[in-house]
Amino acid sequence: MTEALTIWTFDWVPEGPRGYVRDFRLRWACEEAGLGYQVRSVPFENRGPEHFARQPFGQVPFLEDGGITLFESGACLLHLARKSETLMPRDPKGEAETLEWTVAALNSIEMVTVPWWFIGLSKGADNPLEGWALQRLKHLDAVLARRAWLAAGRFTVADLLMADVLRVPKVKAAGDFPAIRSYVDRACARPAFKRAYDGQMAHFVAGDSR
Amino acid sequence: MTEALTIWTFDWVPEGPRGYVRDFRLRWACEEAGLGYQVRSVPFENRGPEHFARQPFGQVPFLEDGGITLFESGACLLHLARKSETLMPRDPKGEAETLEWTVAALNSIEMVTVPWWFIGLSKGADNPLEGWALQRLKHLDAVLARRAWLAAGRFTVADLLMADVLRVPKVKAAGDFPAIRSYVDRACARPAFKRAYDGQMAHFVAGDSR
Repeated sequence: MTEALTIWTFDWVPEGPRGYVRDFRLRWACEEAGLGYQVRSVPFENRGPEHFARQPFGQVPFLEDGGITLFESGACLLHLARKSETLMPRDPKGEAETLEWTVAALNSIEMVTVPWWFIGLSKGADNPLEGWALQRLKHLDAVLARRAWLAAGRFTVADLLMADVLRVPKVKAAGDFPAIRSYVDRACARPAFKRAYDGQMAHFVAGDSR
Repeated sequence: MTEALTIWTFDWVPEGPRGYVRDFRLRWACEEAGLGYQVRSVPFENRGPEHFARQPFGQVPFLEDGGITLFESGACLLHLARKSETLMPRDPKGEAETLEWTVAALNSIEMVTVPWWFIGLSKGADNPLEGWALQRLKHLDAVLARRAWLAAGRFTVADLLMADVLRVPKVKAAGDFPAIRSYVDRACARPAFKRAYDGQMAHFVAGDSR
């Protein structure tokens, strides 16, 4: 049977990023919502014009849904969220909360944490984004100290994305944010998380013999 | 008359950021779509618990729409886009393209350009994000060399956001990206851009006598 949804990712990545490649976000969303999907690959090495035609920055994932292809994991998640109330409530207030926190994960947290991590790879302790990153995490920790999930009083696609942004080693190693830590643990304990994670790991292990 | 939409911003900002505070994005969207709005202020100095309750990172803007309040300019734009086909096409392909490029502005371009600008304020020439930023802009320039607008063959909310991300002095000063330059000029020449810009400038000038 051909699934309606196809998640595209690399055929292989080095061991370091395994478990963190962003096709994971789409897998996790499909697993939460019970949406059938298949996974297909583009070459990690020698990314050509065909790849750039579908992902203009040469990255993954992209999502195929019938005749539509989308790139940007955040956009793919919002697209999937329209298919399932599990991912995003349908009442206007719940929907607005889910939307604002989905964008907050992309543009208030990840906009700082990813460059902070990237600089940390080479710069060590002298990281010009350290103060900014810790301040953002502190504000977020204060929010999560007061509630289990970010939007609408329950798990939504905003939590899926925010937890994925926060579960990286760089954030884990960064100071004392107890509410963030419990939040990430809570999100990663979900059975759909594990299925998606195992799926990505198996995919890249299979790529070792490509 | 009370407008249905209220855009919240600071009562005042220093001269440097005037014209660039992100309530501008919401003003511009409302001007493009012909949506009535009023602008209200929160104090720039001494941001208290009431402010953080509406914007957990102590920033602006946030948008009030009837009983709903949203933060994150990107989320507010997607919320406004549901009210007007001017901002986002209604056909699934046009909608998906608008969504992916809106998120690309937030998470592929601004995620690099804002930290790159921030570090440049203090670090001068030794900017660890320089290479990454220029690479992203190069890929985007290649896309814009082939079309006037990013999504659906016409101006959408994705262009509004991307042009706002790209019109900052840091990007303007960065090397030779002719397609990006024409694109920004094209977007900023729109009458709705000018109305929104003049509105923000007048708001902050009025704030000088607060």
